[in-house]
Amino acid sequence: ADVAVRGDARMGVLYDGNEWGFTSRARVQFNLSGETDGGLTFGGSFRVNDEGGANTGDGRRLASEGSRGTVFIAGPFGRLAMGAPAGAAEAAVGDLHEVGLTGLGFYNEVNYLTGDGDGIRGPWNPTVLYSYTFGDVTFYASASDGRDRGGRVENPALSTGSEDYGVGLAWAAGDFKIAAGFESSQVTNLVGDPAVLTTYGRQEQWVLGGDATFGDFTLRAIYANGDRSVAAGTFDYEEYGISGSATFDLITVTAFARETRQDTATGRNTNTYYGLGGRYDLGGGAALVGGIGYRDLADGTDDTYGDFGVTFRF
Amino acid sequence: ADVAVRGDARMGVLYDGNEWGFTSRARVQFNLSGETDGGLTFGGSFRVNDEGGANTGDGRRLASEGSRGTVFIAGPFGRLAMGAPAGAAEAAVGDLHEVGLTGLGFYNEVNYLTGDGDGIRGPWNPTVLYSYTFGDVTFYASASDGRDRGGRVENPALSTGSEDYGVGLAWAAGDFKIAAGFESSQVTNLVGDPAVLTTYGRQEQWVLGGDATFGDFTLRAIYANGDRSVAAGTFDYEEYGISGSATFDLITVTAFARETRQDTATGRNTNTYYGLGGRYDLGGGAALVGGIGYRDLADGTDDTYGDFGVTFRF
Amino acid sequence: ADVAVRGDARMGVLYDGNEWGFTSRARVQFNLSGETDGGLTFGGSFRVNDEGGANTGDGRRLASEGSRGTVFIAGPFGRLAMGAPAGAAEAAVGDLHEVGLTGLGFYNEVNYLTGDGDGIRGPWNPTVLYSYTFGDVTFYASASDGRDRGGRVENPALSTGSEDYGVGLAWAAGDFKIAAGFESSQVTNLVGDPAVLTTYGRQEQWVLGGDATFGDFTLRAIYANGDRSVAAGTFDYEEYGISGSATFDLITVTAFARETRQDTATGRNTNTYYGLGGRYDLGGGAALVGGIGYRDLADGTDDTYGDFGVTFRF
Repeated sequence: ADVAVRGDARMGVLYDGNEWGFTSRARVQFNLSGETDGGLTFGGSFRVNDEGGANTGDGRRLASEGSRGTVFIAGPFGRLAMGAPAGAAEAAVGDLHEVGLTGLGFYNEVNYLTGDGDGIRGPWNPTVLYSYTFGDVTFYASASDGRDRGGRVENPALSTGSEDYGVGLAWAAGDFKIAAGFESSQVTNLVGDPAVLTTYGRQEQWVLGGDATFGDFTLRAIYANGDRSVAAGTFDYEEYGISGSATFDLITVTAFARETRQDTATGRNTNTYYGLGGRYDLGGGAALVGGIGYRDLADGTDDTYGDFGVTFRF
Repeated sequence: ADVAVRGDARMGVLYDGNEWGFTSRARVQFNLSGETDGGLTFGGSFRVNDEGGANTGDGRRLASEGSRGTVFIAGPFGRLAMGAPAGAAEAAVGDLHEVGLTGLGFYNEVNYLTGDGDGIRGPWNPTVLYSYTFGDVTFYASASDGRDRGGRVENPALSTGSEDYGVGLAWAAGDFKIAAGFESSQVTNLVGDPAVLTTYGRQEQWVLGGDATFGDFTLRAIYANGDRSVAAGTFDYEEYGISGSATFDLITVTAFARETRQDTATGRNTNTYYGLGGRYDLGGGAALVGGIGYRDLADGTDDTYGDFGVTFRF
Repeated sequence: ADVAVRGDARMGVLYDGNEWGFTSRARVQFNLSGETDGGLTFGGSFRVNDEGGANTGDGRRLASEGSRGTVFIAGPFGRLAMGAPAGAAEAAVGDLHEVGLTGLGFYNEVNYLTGDGDGIRGPWNPTVLYSYTFGDVTFYASASDGRDRGGRVENPALSTGSEDYGVGLAWAAGDFKIAAGFESSQVTNLVGDPAVLTTYGRQEQWVLGGDATFGDFTLRAIYANGDRSVAAGTFDYEEYGISGSATFDLITVTAFARETRQDTATGRNTNTYYGLGGRYDLGGGAALVGGIGYRDLADGTDDTYGDFGVTFRF
């Protein structure tokens, strides 16, 4: 049973649609791994900054309190993970290809409702992700217990209702993958005191995705459809997108386009996002990375942004 | 002089007396160790989450500010530790056997008044623990300087009165151990701004404990008696408990019973706690662990709770 | 590309001019390093407690958000660092010799205006330091983008004006070094919500410094002159100091004297600081360290303080 220490860092410039600025970060991750006498594998992982959450702001999500990082055990029965793994739908379908040094707002990511930092937040509230692979097919199931500050005997009164859950199925054969997921979540208001939760209606969605690889070129498409809660109630939500990645020797080019459509009491809000990114491998764990993005939002935002710099892996 | 990186993790389910929920966590600890040319050993240890404290909530207790983790130096003169070691009484006598995956409220632990996170809290306020062993006897002495935000030249005005201190003596011979401790603390109100301290009367207690080991079976008993401060004043406090642990090959069974009696202006408050736990060693640092607990409190709480899951050491 | 884990710790006593108290801490640092196929070196470093900042108090300065620790890449073009490196003036000129176990208020340090935790604070707001060495001369240039919470596409509206910048030049030949720096900063009020910035006038200063080494004795002098903003406006500021360090086998003795002069609307405020420190090397990374300091401040403060204890490196 060992602890491996890995790191990553990046530095560069970012144009946020308004001004240029510098951007940098350095991080370290711990990878825990072991094996029982009976051959089960177990482990976990979290970053140093997975312990840096304060009471305010991001709801005190800490690996030492089960709300960041992951813990897992795996064997013939499948793989069971807790902490902050992706929800089942995200684990099965995934996101579009990411662009840029900083992720450029991560608009390539599907708006998943559960797991991985979504859904109910707060300390002592892990998500559970179970997965089982038989041949080319992997089944996923995930849930949270919906109990903010749960997981402790001292304060059962802080338990609150609302469970999140999700299921997913992925079929991968050779150069093709098809996946589908369903997830359901109760919307809660957790700004400020984590104990004050406002419950809205239950929201849920279907997510479909497909990958196809042709040599050094990969194409991906996603589609999501469901009901999502906004201030005035729960309304239809839909999103779809496509992305591709192509590698030419040391150079990789990535692009995506994605649109989300949220119905509201007063009409449909449509947001559109585009991204284009490039990466040049410098060897030794270093690369030059840059990206350009454009978004056209229902709130009138219409801007272009970009970043460029170096990334390092240690 | 080296830094060793160790980890632990756990995942499972917990019934808090009200509802079932998931529980998990992953942690990493740094163990620092070295030796001077003259043969003195020195070191320290703290966990990553010993640096995650925010200004609010748990009083900004950080290893980098002397309020979590420990630093030590040891030699012929004994062993001197600073940071957040146990107080002398706790170091000498210890706690009853713990049960369960999560500690189930840690009701097996004696209500110590000083050290190890008790007493005055806040940054730059370490506890000191000195110990010296001669033959079968170990002497312990501990103190805090009682100065919240002390340890810095810039803000002497933030120094506040009230020192905590404790002494302890343990005699261990073969399969038997007897220990006693005395400790004294000023009660302070440190909710919210660490600079606002409300001082109550001084509280203190005697703690006695004994261990006896018969092969794979260990029995332990503790007794504490003193004065403890509540809102209306300082009143008699008493607690006693017994616990045992038995190991059969890969299986360990643990149990405890403990009662606390706090006199108040309006009568005596009695709290009773029971715990029963089991552990099955899976090898490689992994184990199946579970426990059941029951508590009957003076405030009318009367519930049964339990947990079950896997623990890992890396 | 590797991650090295190093640690340091200390424990001792401190007299803050008012009372004696205990002081201790333990820390761990990650040093990241790598090399590209083309021979560029890159890396970074940060401490565990560089991720412990909360939203309040010290402005959420985190290595994972570019506001603590450093990231760098170096090659024939020079060395480019981001994160929280020293500003160019500080990188060129440096500080007077430090005394004591705890730094005793760090009154040996020049009041630099930019970089290394000065200037605009907040997440996603790195400082950039570029340096280039040709022969005995090293050139430094640094800047911040002045955009609190910059470096993210999602919140361009949180961008605020005010850039910090600095330049420095150091000439080091054999036992002598001469250095000069200029830096300029906008004063901002960042107590409480990092988004609420009050802008004062721009302040700037020249800093000059020199080192001379004669065998085991090093002498250092610094002088700074500029304009600094206080509540009533921007006024002349001046500081100068001298320090020395002498090593005799296992013993090192260090001393400094420094004075700052701040003009205000009602007259000149003069602060004077003295420090004397000693260190005895115990080998293996351990040392006995102590110091005494005295300060005579314009606000009437007139006190003597000191500390003593052990320091460890791992």
